[in-house]
Amino acid sequence: MPLSALAVSTGDPAGIGPEVIAKCWDNRAEFGLPPFVAIGDGRSIAAVWDGPIEVVDDPRQADSAFDYALPLIQISAADGAVPGHPSVSGAHGSLDALELAVGLARSGSAAAVVTGPVAKDQLYAIGFQHPGQTEFVAERCGISPGNVVMMLAGPTLRTVPVTTHLPFAEVPRALTSALIESRGRAALRGLQRNFGIAEPRLAVSGLNPHSGEGGKLGREEIEVIEPAIAALAAEGWRVTGPHPADTMFHAAARANYDAALCMYHDQALIPIKALHFQDAVNVTLGLPIVRTSPDHGTAFDIAGLDRADPRPMAAAIRMAAEAAMLRADAA
Amino acid sequence: MPLSALAVSTGDPAGIGPEVIAKCWDNRAEFGLPPFVAIGDGRSIAAVWDGPIEVVDDPRQADSAFDYALPLIQISAADGAVPGHPSVSGAHGSLDALELAVGLARSGSAAAVVTGPVAKDQLYAIGFQHPGQTEFVAERCGISPGNVVMMLAGPTLRTVPVTTHLPFAEVPRALTSALIESRGRAALRGLQRNFGIAEPRLAVSGLNPHSGEGGKLGREEIEVIEPAIAALAAEGWRVTGPHPADTMFHAAARANYDAALCMYHDQALIPIKALHFQDAVNVTLGLPIVRTSPDHGTAFDIAGLDRADPRPMAAAIRMAAEAAMLRADAA
Repeated sequence: MPLSALAVSTGDPAGIGPEVIAKCWDNRAEFGLPPFVAIGDGRSIAAVWDGPIEVVDDPRQADSAFDYALPLIQISAADGAVPGHPSVSGAHGSLDALELAVGLARSGSAAAVVTGPVAKDQLYAIGFQHPGQTEFVAERCGISPGNVVMMLAGPTLRTVPVTTHLPFAEVPRALTSALIESRGRAALRGLQRNFGIAEPRLAVSGLNPHSGEGGKLGREEIEVIEPAIAALAAEGWRVTGPHPADTMFHAAARANYDAALCMYHDQALIPIKALHFQDAVNVTLGLPIVRTSPDHGTAFDIAGLDRADPRPMAAAIRMAAEAAMLRADAA
Repeated sequence: MPLSALAVSTGDPAGIGPEVIAKCWDNRAEFGLPPFVAIGDGRSIAAVWDGPIEVVDDPRQADSAFDYALPLIQISAADGAVPGHPSVSGAHGSLDALELAVGLARSGSAAAVVTGPVAKDQLYAIGFQHPGQTEFVAERCGISPGNVVMMLAGPTLRTVPVTTHLPFAEVPRALTSALIESRGRAALRGLQRNFGIAEPRLAVSGLNPHSGEGGKLGREEIEVIEPAIAALAAEGWRVTGPHPADTMFHAAARANYDAALCMYHDQALIPIKALHFQDAVNVTLGLPIVRTSPDHGTAFDIAGLDRADPRPMAAAIRMAAEAAMLRADAA
């Protein structure tokens, strides 16, 4: 059975989301993209793109339209958006679009959700209570935000940070064996469900230089990380480490694992962005639905200038489609 | 005036140093290498390589020999080395070779020093008091080890760590504006002297995720890093930052600077090894002589198996020759 179309929320209408989605449709053949439907305010797309838009009510109508126009489920905000100028009205619109996209995926009308970039400051201004879209999506799916995991996935590397938006100095205290285990388990299950890897291999990084050199340069490897690795291995998972972080991301090392479990934000994001800046995808694992997003922000400074690169959004759409297909086959 | 030959110490005779040096001579044309002289125990080379060796007394005799044999200044250890089996005798020999190589560069007989990998545990066992070869070389040059700086240099990225072999948790306390300034200044001067960049551009990283997001994710950027950047800028240097570490190492970002000043070991080493594992060179800045080394260890586990990759050593020799040439031109 072919997949239904993917739901792609435009994100903030004043950001580059509308532009990169339109460019993805323009280049759908070259990028190898399956049918998708944009969810947002059509005015924000028309403001930056003069291609054909076909308004639909349901992702199931998007398939036939996709050949000749960008299918759109219209979310009408109070005001039209001006590229580069975020507004309260736009924030409301981006939240409505996100909510609808998730609902469509939950109900099975859409095969997956791909989310465009939002402006968190604007969302907070209208009373949004979540740290980001990921937590909102988790809650709408009935999952505790603590149980969903962010993976950054590129063509030759996938990384999962155990801790994320914490000050550097707070990382050692935040790292516990239980947290590493739980993130590791979610990463491993995500590799099975979203990437179709039956026996996934997880490489766990150390925290300290040279993984602590047997305790001489820090004891977190011995006291916190190794017990978590042992616990995961005892469950039958293929887990190795702790590996010195500086020598685990070159090509030969990457061939030995399917994902790297990293102890902190930059340890996960430095290598993925150094290697795959144009095609790294943010994948949320642990959800009942497939959700991906391009790993960039609203880029208000270049919105409306026709300078936004659609490749990260294209990679996010492609990866969502592949994951949705795998899940459909497994179901 | 042509350069005199480079002095290349073999490092530990039981490690892969002798093998990669011999392979560099084998491939001297392909790798584009200038004349160099190996300094170490010829038995350790003959144990892993059956090419021609010409024993010389002085690097100045190496030029003519280099065409038909690997020139060698013989350092006789008490015992011959067995590949993969480090010994006290080998440690003594590697230290003698290092000392001679530095002396030859200091006196101008050798154009530069390239150091093969040593086994620190073995050196400590014979009373070596320095954390590593770098500090030993600094002392022999009459420079305080605190004033020399390690740079990792690859074809598209150079990084300099402000702090190095410290436990992760101790990094925030170790980072001071004075230390960042001093490392930054050494990096900038090194770019001028070793790389011939008249007006070098230094990009300074942040410590926290997203460079602290204006203080929300940590205050080191505001309190420690920004003052150091301002101080360097006030001296007329071209310095930018603090940059979020995850978005400063992709190709477009790297085009904006000549070196990245990083706050801790893995922040500097993850990107350089992810991008340039085979050709990153460790360059010591702040010395009166040129000193480089390949960025790998003794690899005792593969010593003697003809599996060692000579490309990192070749890159170190080439970079040393280029730096020596630039310094000679400037003198």
